[in-house]
Amino acid sequence: MIKTDILIIGAGPTGLFAVFEAGLLQLKCHLIDALPQAGGQCSEIYPKKPIYDIPGFPEVLAGDLVNNLMEQIKAFQPGFTLGERANTIEKLEDGTFLVTTNKGTQHNAPIVAIAGGLGSFEPRKPLIDRIKDYEDKGVSYFIKDPEVYRNKKVLIAGGGDSALDWSIFLADVASEVTLVHRRNEFRGALDSVEKVQSLKNLGKINLITPAEVVGLKGSGKLEAVVINKSGDQDEEIIKEIDHFIPLFGLSPKLGPIADWGLEIEKNAIKVDTFDYQTNIPGIYAIGDVNTYPGKLKLILCGFHEATLMCQSAYQRIFPDKKYVMKYTTVGGVSGFDGSKKEAPKAVVKAID
Amino acid sequence: MIKTDILIIGAGPTGLFAVFEAGLLQLKCHLIDALPQAGGQCSEIYPKKPIYDIPGFPEVLAGDLVNNLMEQIKAFQPGFTLGERANTIEKLEDGTFLVTTNKGTQHNAPIVAIAGGLGSFEPRKPLIDRIKDYEDKGVSYFIKDPEVYRNKKVLIAGGGDSALDWSIFLADVASEVTLVHRRNEFRGALDSVEKVQSLKNLGKINLITPAEVVGLKGSGKLEAVVINKSGDQDEEIIKEIDHFIPLFGLSPKLGPIADWGLEIEKNAIKVDTFDYQTNIPGIYAIGDVNTYPGKLKLILCGFHEATLMCQSAYQRIFPDKKYVMKYTTVGGVSGFDGSKKEAPKAVVKAID
Repeated sequence: MIKTDILIIGAGPTGLFAVFEAGLLQLKCHLIDALPQAGGQCSEIYPKKPIYDIPGFPEVLAGDLVNNLMEQIKAFQPGFTLGERANTIEKLEDGTFLVTTNKGTQHNAPIVAIAGGLGSFEPRKPLIDRIKDYEDKGVSYFIKDPEVYRNKKVLIAGGGDSALDWSIFLADVASEVTLVHRRNEFRGALDSVEKVQSLKNLGKINLITPAEVVGLKGSGKLEAVVINKSGDQDEEIIKEIDHFIPLFGLSPKLGPIADWGLEIEKNAIKVDTFDYQTNIPGIYAIGDVNTYPGKLKLILCGFHEATLMCQSAYQRIFPDKKYVMKYTTVGGVSGFDGSKKEAPKAVVKAID
Repeated sequence: MIKTDILIIGAGPTGLFAVFEAGLLQLKCHLIDALPQAGGQCSEIYPKKPIYDIPGFPEVLAGDLVNNLMEQIKAFQPGFTLGERANTIEKLEDGTFLVTTNKGTQHNAPIVAIAGGLGSFEPRKPLIDRIKDYEDKGVSYFIKDPEVYRNKKVLIAGGGDSALDWSIFLADVASEVTLVHRRNEFRGALDSVEKVQSLKNLGKINLITPAEVVGLKGSGKLEAVVINKSGDQDEEIIKEIDHFIPLFGLSPKLGPIADWGLEIEKNAIKVDTFDYQTNIPGIYAIGDVNTYPGKLKLILCGFHEATLMCQSAYQRIFPDKKYVMKYTTVGGVSGFDGSKKEAPKAVVKAID
């Protein structure tokens, strides 16, 4: 059982920054995210795209923003449960919450902060017979650890940036990379499209287009796929492979959180702007996942909400303590790892 | 008369970021600030101090944060009235506001956003007879343009960073720099204290301590000061100078805004968190100057408040238009200067 002060569901920018504000109050955080890495959409969907409306950054790549936030919170040593989705919540007799993921990992905390963004990103799965039976047995919808594919035969399906970028990356890792797309045209960054073209010309990526994977074969684990290649006459290809990775995009779903008894409005969780608490005391919702009059789904608003939430969480955990806010410029930042960052102190010194 | 869409009173980080959010909505801004430059406290009080709680910046010097914000808003071409304090506000028949500064500059806008921080920073003035008569005639409390002091005899009074840093700076500009402080000890950055010590040793700064300026002489303009130097026997020195600059710190005052009919609580302006509007429709208050339940006086909260304020201002100016928020990552940023920043577009391209 993982125990922490604030259990944050969703490791996007809002959830990450909450770790910092909690840390200033000496509260520890643990984050759960369905994606295999921290950063939410910024890391998974558009890491190389610029954001222009983060205050103080005339331009910042989404992936760099996440890296900066990870650096900013490092001293507060957050824990992470990644690649798992928060499934159930239970209020224990001592007033704390028990949150269990789809893989059975249990988390216990007096405060739960839902920072789930637009929801947990679920992969769009192709409609292929028995595909569920092969999941984690050769079929996967995310690439968590590229090393899994070293010297294996990999088939990627899809026509967007993910399919292009992972084909390029795995061309140097896998023994064979095949890219299947139902059109000849790909939609993505120009340099990615051109790179796949050149790897194809060099024979490092097999391209099969326009085509679709329509069947899966293998006993116990995936051994081959059936590909339907369109043309003057449709052609059926049976291809032996070790891994099939359909990358058809992610679609956000509020998911199991919708059944936690929280007030929901337009697929978002209603909160009070005083502290971004939900209708269940001790459960907060911050960032794109919440709604209130005037709500804007902007990262910078999530930062503010996370900050006010932490103050309220502190008061819930320590109802008798009076917290006096110290500016970081004045008080510095004391990490849980023993680190201390602070402004150079003024000296008092005679000049003679 | 200066006309704009949103008249922002206070050019600190919150006021500056409001220019950006207004710009995304194609609204123009003009800023008034009592200080001689943009940036508020960050520029005037602690430009070289690190801030640790700006989201995405593990550490940023206050002055650099201001520079970044100035760069971020550049394309939206804000106007500035600096070194003047907003004195009076009047609602005109057409529903717009007329704001006049202490120097008589008039500004007209349908929306006023008060981003005044802790108030306008008023210099702490020494209690010297007739000092008011010499203001702007040899006595000044800020250094707006150091060139004013080229080849002049300057006397600075004070014992903190401002007195130290300006003495160092003017040692290369003025014909003579004298630093007077009522103690032998100075309080400031170690390297500033050491630099003044070495300039004193080189004869480039005259140091008179412990001492106080107790009188001013001159007809029409300042010609000399009377200095009381403490010691076994107090000594009175009459020193001919062109400029006397007492740097005894700044103290924030809500100032004339307190008389604008706004609801005030604990020296701050009460607002509704829906859009950070005050009790007077069309007048908003954002950043440290406002108060509401749960308020935290943090820069990052000001950014959020500025953003929601701009949405509400847009609706007031264009009640019939329905604004649909576009993410900057998707829609880019179109400056008033004709510039356009946007993410590289995806291509749709066949691979053959």
